[in-house]
Amino acid sequence: MSYIILDASNLEDYLFSLPKIKTYFNADSLIIDEIGDGNLNFVFLVTSSSDTSKQLIIKQAVPYLRCVGESYPLSKDRMTYEIRSLERFAKLSPHIPKIYHSDEEMSVLIMEYLSSHVIMRKGMIEGVEYPKFAEHISSFLANTLFKTSSLYLSSSDKRKLISQFNDNSELCKLTEDFVFTAPFMEDETNAYLPELTDVADRISNDVELKTKILQLKYKFMNQSDALLHGDLHTGSIMVNQDDTYVIDSEFAFVGPMGFDVGALIANLVMSWVSHTLQDNDSRYSDLILDTINSVWRRFSEKFLTLWNETEESALLTKGFANDEILQTYQEQYMQTLLQESIGFAGCKIIRRQFGIAGVEDIRGIEDDALREKANRLAIEVGERFIKQYHTVMNTDDIMKLIKE
Amino acid sequence: MSYIILDASNLEDYLFSLPKIKTYFNADSLIIDEIGDGNLNFVFLVTSSSDTSKQLIIKQAVPYLRCVGESYPLSKDRMTYEIRSLERFAKLSPHIPKIYHSDEEMSVLIMEYLSSHVIMRKGMIEGVEYPKFAEHISSFLANTLFKTSSLYLSSSDKRKLISQFNDNSELCKLTEDFVFTAPFMEDETNAYLPELTDVADRISNDVELKTKILQLKYKFMNQSDALLHGDLHTGSIMVNQDDTYVIDSEFAFVGPMGFDVGALIANLVMSWVSHTLQDNDSRYSDLILDTINSVWRRFSEKFLTLWNETEESALLTKGFANDEILQTYQEQYMQTLLQESIGFAGCKIIRRQFGIAGVEDIRGIEDDALREKANRLAIEVGERFIKQYHTVMNTDDIMKLIKE
Repeated sequence: MSYIILDASNLEDYLFSLPKIKTYFNADSLIIDEIGDGNLNFVFLVTSSSDTSKQLIIKQAVPYLRCVGESYPLSKDRMTYEIRSLERFAKLSPHIPKIYHSDEEMSVLIMEYLSSHVIMRKGMIEGVEYPKFAEHISSFLANTLFKTSSLYLSSSDKRKLISQFNDNSELCKLTEDFVFTAPFMEDETNAYLPELTDVADRISNDVELKTKILQLKYKFMNQSDALLHGDLHTGSIMVNQDDTYVIDSEFAFVGPMGFDVGALIANLVMSWVSHTLQDNDSRYSDLILDTINSVWRRFSEKFLTLWNETEESALLTKGFANDEILQTYQEQYMQTLLQESIGFAGCKIIRRQFGIAGVEDIRGIEDDALREKANRLAIEVGERFIKQYHTVMNTDDIMKLIKE
Repeated sequence: MSYIILDASNLEDYLFSLPKIKTYFNADSLIIDEIGDGNLNFVFLVTSSSDTSKQLIIKQAVPYLRCVGESYPLSKDRMTYEIRSLERFAKLSPHIPKIYHSDEEMSVLIMEYLSSHVIMRKGMIEGVEYPKFAEHISSFLANTLFKTSSLYLSSSDKRKLISQFNDNSELCKLTEDFVFTAPFMEDETNAYLPELTDVADRISNDVELKTKILQLKYKFMNQSDALLHGDLHTGSIMVNQDDTYVIDSEFAFVGPMGFDVGALIANLVMSWVSHTLQDNDSRYSDLILDTINSVWRRFSEKFLTLWNETEESALLTKGFANDEILQTYQEQYMQTLLQESIGFAGCKIIRRQFGIAGVEDIRGIEDDALREKANRLAIEVGERFIKQYHTVMNTDDIMKLIKE
């Protein structure tokens, strides 16, 4: 249907106009709560008044930035890319909430309510362990990245995929500006402790660091490996002890695989920084390092398994490569992917220290001196990641760069 | 207008239905010659019967491969990409024939007839010198590649450009198959002297060579640097002593810049091979090496000049990079571009020795033994290009790889 903005007054009528949703709620009256605390969209939790176990999430994009208001226009088309990517990911991985309805015109997505899950970042700040996370997220990454790449799709299917996401310009531009640019120069959107001005100045003029950032930004803009989530930090993941779900994929586009892997590593590193400086012992922070290790190890194993099961793809015509050629190429491919992941992770870590959007793991540290220490430690790791990304050969090298 | 196939019986009516063309020919009766000798399309030369200086070229794509017939379907949409690319290039460079009319629906392009120019490959086979060629083609390459890249366009304009060409799947697939795949494996489309079977077998199992070819094919499919001509060999260039024109851009898509630069270098190298083995002295072959040198030197100078004149682009926000950072990044960028150009050139050289499409410079050598020698020499240079592309730092290194 054509676009109208949903609110408490018209949401029930809208939902009951959708047969599948009407049936789900048994046409019962609905309890509507606006629960969105994100920056971009309106999010409603809708509950059946007679059976409170029946709950759905309704997410709608409005043509402006929700947290600022109509004075900051932002195309509601972003929901189009969230819908397309979540529906694609759902075909490739079980780690996507169940989708009940989507409408690109209405910029609406209706999904399962994950009542027993929390945003992973919040859980990690509290030091909660998620023993299945590495297994789940490595599986999500391997399946979604491999199966939307030229290593799996045909040449024309890959181009069709690019067409579906190529116009997500506004959100790609947000990443280009706020991940790769503003945090590394003087910019009015930056926000950091005045004590960090010396570091900001040094970084702003560091030739080695800035040329590597340009290399990575160029890859972000010009390397169409696979369909990315585009913003895969721990705030885009919902977890509990049993499940892992990926949400909020409005930044999706066809870009460099390392950007998704790197986003995840970056946010695990920032949690490690936070726990290393605040915890009485190293149990949880060591666990985070194990998780990073495990995510990469499992991801690369699964990715290669999928690859070895694939008879033919845009890249590999049957009969082109004998086993030795394939294996040699695969090793090079995975090494480049690991290196680019670390490079992107470095950008993501540093941008969270200087840029408009901090992470709660560090920004939430109340003691100013300790927060500054956390910022500095994160920046150091980020700098090493960016400057040395080309040299990383395995997870031991990542551990060295973190703990140096 | 909606699509009809043009032929001698309906072409005049069609042309006179176009006011601009009717005016050009002064509504005079027309002499129609079908002159196309290409593989893909129908090409007519139309001449005014009362003023034979008034001549235009009418090029139309049919929904099959012209040289085979209706049994080999190929979407006529290829003309869409030729029209879009030539019109874009014409805005960026004077080295495109004047376009009088285009119609994507009709798959028709009406262009200036270059009566005093020859296909460059033919001229080079005859040993004709084109003293302005290096200057012209380096200018064409610098302007079209730079000004369709993230180094010049805004982020959203770059994405719009990708959308315009992303669906040129069929012709991209032809390149993927016939430049990067079939010539390097057993394939029924290959065509070479039986004496070369030993070399074909060796290449087919060469781990280093084939992994590098996979790297390059992957870049071709996943690296969207700039709008490419896509098939920039000496058969796609018309020249005389004064002018240089680029034609036949139906393979256009947004891909790695080095693919266009490399196509040109590859075809100059094959002409060098041909002349080195057939000429009595090295005058012309030395001139070809000078041309390769000169093309790269002038191209990189012009490319950097354009870059330095550009205040802001998708990649470089004003104020992000100081002079030292910019210059360091530019040096890295140009070095990578040179390296990729040599890698792509290597693939293009070897594919012309084994693949379905040879080049007249070598395939036209009548003496079998000499032709075999030319094939072997070209293959050797191609192999060195591919295996060592990562090590090339400057044009001296290219010369060493050619003459080794």
